[in-house]
This record gives sequence, structure tokens and C-alpha cells, in this order.
Amino acid sequence: MKGKFITFEGGEGCGKSTQVKLLNGYLQNRGVDTVLTKEPGSTEEGKVLRNLLVTGDKDRFDSVSECLLYYADRRCNLQKVVWPALEQGKWVISDRYADSTEAYQYYGYNNGITPEMLNELYHIVAGDFKPDLTLILDIDPQIGRQRSFAKAENMQVKELRFESRELEFHNNLRRGFLEIAKREPERCVVVNADQSIQNLHDEIVRIVNERLKI
Amino acid sequence: MKGKFITFEGGEGCGKSTQVKLLNGYLQNRGVDTVLTKEPGSTEEGKVLRNLLVTGDKDRFDSVSECLLYYADRRCNLQKVVWPALEQGKWVISDRYADSTEAYQYYGYNNGITPEMLNELYHIVAGDFKPDLTLILDIDPQIGRQRSFAKAENMQVKELRFESRELEFHNNLRRGFLEIAKREPERCVVVNADQSIQNLHDEIVRIVNERLKI
Repeated sequence: MKGKFITFEGGEGCGKSTQVKLLNGYLQNRGVDTVLTKEPGSTEEGKVLRNLLVTGDKDRFDSVSECLLYYADRRCNLQKVVWPALEQGKWVISDRYADSTEAYQYYGYNNGITPEMLNELYHIVAGDFKPDLTLILDIDPQIGRQRSFAKAENMQVKELRFESRELEFHNNLRRGFLEIAKREPERCVVVNADQSIQNLHDEIVRIVNERLKI
Repeated sequence: MKGKFITFEGGEGCGKSTQVKLLNGYLQNRGVDTVLTKEPGSTEEGKVLRNLLVTGDKDRFDSVSECLLYYADRRCNLQKVVWPALEQGKWVISDRYADSTEAYQYYGYNNGITPEMLNELYHIVAGDFKPDLTLILDIDPQIGRQRSFAKAENMQVKELRFESRELEFHNNLRRGFLEIAKREPERCVVVNADQSIQNLHDEIVRIVNERLKI
């Protein structure tokens, strides 16, 4: 693959989407051809799967089915968006990727899903392919939740399934992302997301320049 | 599990659905409490997944995504229909199960899916659970296809994605089911489906009585 694949991960309200856009602008200004994507729901098929996953009765799919559907969405994202762009030498930035599935399903819900299951699913869907860089935006869940609720109120968003879960869940999620980062330091960098948008962006730019050659 | 789980497998036009109903009637007459199910699409959630899989552009999901969706459907079928019924001591008869995924995806389409991937998916979804008996209805694909087309014409069915594939595909499918049966003789019995409905039913009843205690 000729391009680079950067993923953003983190809990609710950590500012991923904003930072994805800012990094994208920065790279484009530097003459890098970029593609933005996200999970779930980056493709037509993925949108249908996302709709199944985030709307309706939240118990209609159990953890195992949910993981299968997230991985089906991931396969569509890789096959139709990520891999073709990388082949063309573009840089792809994804708002969430496989670490989110592990953090939410194993560390968060912890409802029978094991890291081994997720590894097997990952391997089926992506083989040995991995992001070149994963930025984990770390924030105290209480601050993150306040941000999420404030944003949702502004946008009059009704669907806040994740955000309405109890704080313990969000603490587990945070711990999950940090453990993943510890396990794979060559791929992951943890960034303190409790700082101004501009400062966080500057730090991300520094990391991207350090880790990947633009 | 207190009940018994019987699966019917086989290519197009082998008469599975008819034989499922006849066996069901036979068991009920013998005082056995039964539940009929099928894959894909036995549950509300499964119907949505089935709809994604069998309608629309046939290339919208690649083989890997397709397998993940079939297994998500399977998980719903097991979790919501099969396992609860077996726990209650009922006998469950399923029109298709995991062997169909292997026969179609690996032997039929043969588009990058390996038996190892399917084994891993099976284990994630069902653990060590297996059918007590699998009846593989075997028929020459040329005869099976004629039956399928005749039936579809009668029913004015427009969607015949599988049946319209070339004969080679159906021959591979048949070979697949036969190889699966050879590999797992303690679970699978191959039945010649090129005989009258009544004779086939009689043979199935004989096998069920031999293999499982009613």
C-alpha cells in the first residue's frame, strides 16, 4: 500500500471528529491527497448496518451479532474506501476503527466477547493489515460526557445511546483504549484531549510528522 | 440441551422445505414438541439481514462480509429460536444451517473464503454446539434445477439468484455437501433426493428413528 492509514480513537466527547477535520485540512495544505472515512457507516451498505446497530431496541442484537455486524461494516469500509485510496497513494483518516470495537465490546459492555474472538474477526476481515498510526484521544469521561451532552443539546440530537450509559462504562472504555495503546506502542499514541482544540491539533500534527513522513 | 436439533441441507430443488414439513408432522404425531426454523431470516433481525443478502446488487457485499452477515443471522437464530426451544426439551428442525455457508461460500463461490475462517466464525457464534443430526438431501444439480425452475414458474417467483448460476457452481455445491458429510459421518447422513416425496420421507423417518431416540 502506498498511502498511510491514520485512525482516531477515543470515548465520547473527546473531540475526534473535530480533530479529524483539522488534520485533514493540515495534510491537504501540505499537498497530501486525503480521504476521510468513519466507522460505522462509511459506505452505502455500512449505512444500513449502522442503522441496524445504533437505532431500535438496543438488545435486539446480542454482543456476538453486534461484533459480526461491526466487522461486516469494517470490511465494507476497508474494501471500498480504505484499501482503494491507499493503493492510489492517498492518506486515509478514519474516525474510529477496530480499537473501538475492542474498547466498547470487551472493556465496556464486557458481555461475553473475548479479545481472542475479536482478533479472529480482525484477521478474517483485514488479514495482517493495520493502521500506520492510531491517535487515542484520552479524556476524563466526566468531562467527555459533559461535552457530548452539550453538543447533543445544541444539535437537538435524540439518539445518545452510548452517552447515556453510566459513568463506570465510560471509565472502562477509557481503560480499554489505554491498555490497547500500551500493548501496541509502535502503532498507538495517546494524546491528552483535555486541552484547547488548537493545542490538541498542534500536538497531533507534531505526532503525525514525527511518526509518518509527509 | 434437552431437545434435539436436526438440520436439513442440500442444493436447489432437493426438496428440503417439503421434507422439513413432513418430518415435522411425523414428529408431532409421535407426540414430540417441535419448532421449525430456517436460515437465513428466522427472526425479525434475521429477516433484515436476509433482505440485505438476497436482494439488491449481488456484488454489494463481498464474500467476507456475506459470511459475517450469514453468521450474524445464525447467531440470532440460535440465540432466539434454537437454544431456547432445545432448553425446553423441544426438537428443532432447521431448513439450512452452517453447512450451507460452507458449501456455498467455499465450495460454490470459492472467492477467498477458507474452511478455517468459517470454523472460526462458527466457533465465535456457536461454540461447541452442533446439530444432533444433519440430513443432506443429495440430487443431481440438473434435476434439482429443473425442479427449482418449475416451482418458481408456478409461484411466479422473480428472485432466483442462486438458481440462475451456472451448472458448474451447483456441481461444486453438491461436492461440498458430500465432502462435509464424509468428514462428519457421526452427524451427517446423505439421502438420495431423487425419489418420490413419500419414499424420501420414509427414508428420513427411518434415519431419524435410527439416529435419535424419539
